[in-house]
Amino acid sequence: MSDLEDLRHRMRAFTNERDWEQFHDPKSLLLAIVGEVGELSELFQWLPATDARGLAEEDPLRSRVAEEMSDVLLYLVRLADVLGIDLHAAAVAKIEAAGERFAADEVRGTAPTKH
Amino acid sequence: MSDLEDLRHRMRAFTNERDWEQFHDPKSLLLAIVGEVGELSELFQWLPATDARGLAEEDPLRSRVAEEMSDVLLYLVRLADVLGIDLHAAAVAKIEAAGERFAADEVRGTAPTKH
Amino acid sequence: MSDLEDLRHRMRAFTNERDWEQFHDPKSLLLAIVGEVGELSELFQWLPATDARGLAEEDPLRSRVAEEMSDVLLYLVRLADVLGIDLHAAAVAKIEAAGERFAADEVRGTAPTKH
Amino acid sequence: MSDLEDLRHRMRAFTNERDWEQFHDPKSLLLAIVGEVGELSELFQWLPATDARGLAEEDPLRSRVAEEMSDVLLYLVRLADVLGIDLHAAAVAKIEAAGERFAADEVRGTAPTKH
Repeated sequence: MSDLEDLRHRMRAFTNERDWEQFHDPKSLLLAIVGEVGELSELFQWLPATDARGLAEEDPLRSRVAEEMSDVLLYLVRLADVLGIDLHAAAVAKIEAAGERFAADEVRGTAPTKH
Repeated sequence: MSDLEDLRHRMRAFTNERDWEQFHDPKSLLLAIVGEVGELSELFQWLPATDARGLAEEDPLRSRVAEEMSDVLLYLVRLADVLGIDLHAAAVAKIEAAGERFAADEVRGTAPTKH
Repeated sequence: MSDLEDLRHRMRAFTNERDWEQFHDPKSLLLAIVGEVGELSELFQWLPATDARGLAEEDPLRSRVAEEMSDVLLYLVRLADVLGIDLHAAAVAKIEAAGERFAADEVRGTAPTKH
Repeated sequence: MSDLEDLRHRMRAFTNERDWEQFHDPKSLLLAIVGEVGELSELFQWLPATDARGLAEEDPLRSRVAEEMSDVLLYLVRLADVLGIDLHAAAVAKIEAAGERFAADEVRGTAPTKH
């Protein structure tokens, strides 16, 4: 079993054992993802941009970051399960589309701008 | 190779081919995750809570949701790669800890409250 | 003095007294906004959509919601101050533009869709 | 009339004229805030941390940032209106509480840490 499948099964079992399916509509799960992204952001917000990576590679920050990233992933996997979306297949399709959209020769060294 | 590993390798190759490692410090990647969570939220924001799941299970919404969820996952995987975090192992540890913290017999049918 | 001006002055004084200007670059303040939006989301995530308003109109939830909304506003006001943006003028311009973009007769009763 | 009051009245009129009150339950408005914070994040995500302020102080970025910040503020004001929360009073109370919690002499020059 693949590891995203493994997490999907674990989250489904965790939810069913607690009779929490009733809370897992898409908008609620999305707010849960936002909550966890918020907790992850709080770990980084005041760190100098140039030190953030080094600090997050070592404890105690490393463990906290791993926990909050896990929470984001677990709710994302749960939302995909509720909607019947195959996250790995969708992500492979997305990165392949991005590869065509942003030709390496044209964008090398330049971040795409949104404005 | 596991599927999270597969995505990690694809994102790393995508980044390296474009010389975009320079943009991928943790705070920037975190803002990219926020941007994609925002796009996902916009797909759901005005849907009635009770219809959201049904609507998101069918196109055209299904494809758009899968794309935005993929973007969230891909940047999350990329952030984990930059920080040297094993997302699958961290997520398994997190859900096991949650299993102990929220004993099924005590919380069955009741959502944990934050306030 | 207008009330957004009042909050701008209070946040500036709060920041200066603590010598925290050094932490208030735009990306850091944005992550702080995300953190507070996350805390607000956690208050609502598992509430039934139809009960959320009623529950949030009464304590204890009401006070917690007011606090987290305040934090979002305060960091938003602080970011505007750092960037020299007049939030009230910008918001008036934005809602007037939205009024022209979404003609009442054409969109009455229909939520704009993003997909 | 104060400027937050002014925005509250404008958003209420905008909503009523379009018969959009039906979409403005708290969880939906919260997802709308998340969507706008996401759009704001996309404007900043790949900017070098040290250049972000300077770039955002000039057009074309300045106008885009002002627009997205306005959207965040307008939905926040709308959510406060739906819940009957006085945002200015709540924000003043919050910053005064923060002033007591973080005594200037004790935290000067040091960012509060969350981990």
